[in-house]
Amino acid sequence: MADEEQFDGLDELPSSPSPDTIKVGSTTMSLPTKLKGKKIKKKGHRRENNITGEVTFKKSSSEAIAGALQLGIAHSVGKLSERPDRDVLMQDFEVVELIDFPTKGTTLTPPHEFGEFTFQSYAPLAMRYFRDIFDISVEGYIHSIIHEPLTAIGNPGASGSLFWITHDDEFIIKTVDNKEAEFLMNLLPGYFMNVQQNPRTLLPKFYGLYCVKKERKHIRVVVMNNLLPRDVEMHYKFDLKGSRYKRKANSKEQQKKSPTWKDLDFERIFDSKRISLVKESYNAMIETIKRDCLVLNSFSIMDYSFLIGVHKCSVGEIASMESMSLSASNSRGNSVFKRSALYSSPMEQVFTGSQVNLQLSQHKVDQNWGGIPALLPDGTQVLIYCGIIDILQCYKLLKRTEHFFKSLYTNGEEISVVRPGFYAERFQDFLKNKVFIPQSKSSLPNPSQILEQGLEEELEDKLSKEAAKSNVDHNKNGTYF
Amino acid sequence: MADEEQFDGLDELPSSPSPDTIKVGSTTMSLPTKLKGKKIKKKGHRRENNITGEVTFKKSSSEAIAGALQLGIAHSVGKLSERPDRDVLMQDFEVVELIDFPTKGTTLTPPHEFGEFTFQSYAPLAMRYFRDIFDISVEGYIHSIIHEPLTAIGNPGASGSLFWITHDDEFIIKTVDNKEAEFLMNLLPGYFMNVQQNPRTLLPKFYGLYCVKKERKHIRVVVMNNLLPRDVEMHYKFDLKGSRYKRKANSKEQQKKSPTWKDLDFERIFDSKRISLVKESYNAMIETIKRDCLVLNSFSIMDYSFLIGVHKCSVGEIASMESMSLSASNSRGNSVFKRSALYSSPMEQVFTGSQVNLQLSQHKVDQNWGGIPALLPDGTQVLIYCGIIDILQCYKLLKRTEHFFKSLYTNGEEISVVRPGFYAERFQDFLKNKVFIPQSKSSLPNPSQILEQGLEEELEDKLSKEAAKSNVDHNKNGTYF
Repeated sequence: MADEEQFDGLDELPSSPSPDTIKVGSTTMSLPTKLKGKKIKKKGHRRENNITGEVTFKKSSSEAIAGALQLGIAHSVGKLSERPDRDVLMQDFEVVELIDFPTKGTTLTPPHEFGEFTFQSYAPLAMRYFRDIFDISVEGYIHSIIHEPLTAIGNPGASGSLFWITHDDEFIIKTVDNKEAEFLMNLLPGYFMNVQQNPRTLLPKFYGLYCVKKERKHIRVVVMNNLLPRDVEMHYKFDLKGSRYKRKANSKEQQKKSPTWKDLDFERIFDSKRISLVKESYNAMIETIKRDCLVLNSFSIMDYSFLIGVHKCSVGEIASMESMSLSASNSRGNSVFKRSALYSSPMEQVFTGSQVNLQLSQHKVDQNWGGIPALLPDGTQVLIYCGIIDILQCYKLLKRTEHFFKSLYTNGEEISVVRPGFYAERFQDFLKNKVFIPQSKSSLPNPSQILEQGLEEELEDKLSKEAAKSNVDHNKNGTYF
Repeated sequence: MADEEQFDGLDELPSSPSPDTIKVGSTTMSLPTKLKGKKIKKKGHRRENNITGEVTFKKSSSEAIAGALQLGIAHSVGKLSERPDRDVLMQDFEVVELIDFPTKGTTLTPPHEFGEFTFQSYAPLAMRYFRDIFDISVEGYIHSIIHEPLTAIGNPGASGSLFWITHDDEFIIKTVDNKEAEFLMNLLPGYFMNVQQNPRTLLPKFYGLYCVKKERKHIRVVVMNNLLPRDVEMHYKFDLKGSRYKRKANSKEQQKKSPTWKDLDFERIFDSKRISLVKESYNAMIETIKRDCLVLNSFSIMDYSFLIGVHKCSVGEIASMESMSLSASNSRGNSVFKRSALYSSPMEQVFTGSQVNLQLSQHKVDQNWGGIPALLPDGTQVLIYCGIIDILQCYKLLKRTEHFFKSLYTNGEEISVVRPGFYAERFQDFLKNKVFIPQSKSSLPNPSQILEQGLEEELEDKLSKEAAKSNVDHNKNGTYF
């Protein structure tokens, strides 16, 4: 590990064209030292050239890393699929498989242009099991990863990680450091147990943990589920922790087209009111959060967030969803309905007696808590997409704990980083009492009324030629479906 | 641990009446040294007085231990049931709960006459989870354990353990030493994974691991499933390992009313022929054994056995089973049918697409592989009861390995103790190719024919007044049901 960490803190600059120089006519001039830094935006191992836009991570370009990942993952998963299926054993959580990818290729690997690297696949059999239980097929996984180049996405957090998303929006690939990778490896047996016992878990779904070893540097990545599909417009995004301390989106974030709001913003935006869920959804969600927090707490994990994406439904969507619900159709389109199909059957059927339903679906874990019908405080009908994120951070907190120790006992409620048990408790309380509110079904209009209302409004909509209108602002007596 | 192990090897004799002396008239005479030993049969920590019949274990009487176990288990399980249900965590596998049972009683414990003891419950939450998944209710468990005194049963093995069985035949309680208990604790995470992935597992079902600490001695017990119900007559019992070395019941065993035969006896009794199973049962069983062996091998476990009980069906049983199968009734009597009810539905339904069926039954694990219809080589219709036993022995083998190492490579096939991988392989091969044979269903008569035949024979049976007759020896073209 030491060999790769020794470069930490150096401001790495692309070697050609030299960013230290600038051409003025035919003369090459050195840039003043102060200007050099401004060209390169750095965060952790991530470097971004403000002029060329090139992003590097541990001196490798984002594109070269993505290319190596595509080759490596396809090879690893493909090779694994040739082996007979068998049960996962405790030892499988500790396995690391290696394969060399020389640029010239071998009998097993193709020639490539990403620079010689070694690909490591962590706990491959356990990860295959998780993919299987999360209902990800071998073909689907490989296709998503390699069919088209991975798309680098802006760094959503402040961690200095690189992020990519697959062309079909299914998977997110994120760099993690060696501590995070090690932590995830240690977490795997407990993660296995959680997935088995709590199949509606809201924890991140881990599909793979890999490492590209290149020029003595280790670039480790984790492949996870994508909570917020890009093809569904998110009218709000929230990253909630249950803390009030510094939990406000900064001005830079606020200026973004689609900012990620925090706890204090949530309070402000919704005027300290809550998002309504059908009682069964509410109970199932709070129960799931409780079980997930139990696991996180047992691993002394803190500082995780609850991510919520809010999509305001158009009138057409409301009508379509209602008709899906009535016909109990299984067809899934590539739209907002794709992820909400799980919830297209009546909510009680999905949420009550969940054990039975889950068993019927071959003990698979839900793909997403995406597309759950909900009502904003102003009555707007929405679909929400949510999950718990950033659960591999605990090692950082261990370092910071001492620093925060004093404030813990003086003003415990106001800081974001506290003991895991307290953190988990506050997190749950916040979601239970400040973010979501249950609404009894009896107070809602019946489905056919909604459908009629939806169709009438759609007709109106068409007539008024407001084709671009994507939201419908209902009054406070808004309807569920 | 040291304090309790220091007495190992000492021949403990009851202190009063002194077994070292004998009264001849009014004179007390010392017994010659040679005779002393004969009064006391010892094996490990077990001592049996040949004259009084009293059995002790680490100086405590079998009855006092059984009484303490009843009190302790009832308290531990009852107390646990007051706590809210929650998911099992990795840490739960390491928990040991303690409670003191003074003879006078406390506010929490009743007064008793078993001598002051401390009761330890190992991994109580994990064990609760296993009981739940094995479909054992709190009430049922407590009732079985405490409703009537535990019955001490003769030591079936050569281990010097004490065995008890509950009045309703459901559970076996067996003493284990500290190494076995520790080994089981270490095995629990892997055991959890196996139960989850391989719900038809043939491994022992562990329902509890406890310790009675009394006068500085630890008496540890494990509560397990009872594979061979006493109310079903076992016409044959086999303990099979897949080895030929010393695998023959000794003369003492042979003289028993119901001897447990070994590998070479199996070969002799059935003339090197095999027990026929419907193809689907055969495949499911071999597949299950394979998966169980994978787990055992992963923990370097060896020397386990496959226990088979064979019950020859009476004509009445055949007819009743057939009618149960036809009516798909769920009623379970307290007889041979109790344990075969799981198999009363058509075999294909149970064995093929087992995933789906298991899911339907709320992911519970099969109680038993008891009561599987089979045919002996001579065509006799039987029900077989089977499972893998003695899986906590590995630590003993570690000590013995060195000793056996030479023979391993010179005559590996002939000795019972070899490398775990080889052991598992040979074990599976033996069961697959020497013990069981698949039979295609198409070659079997259809159910109504069997029923008619069964009823006719039953009538004949009654007429011939052979009321005591318990077996029906069919010809070699015998029938399945």
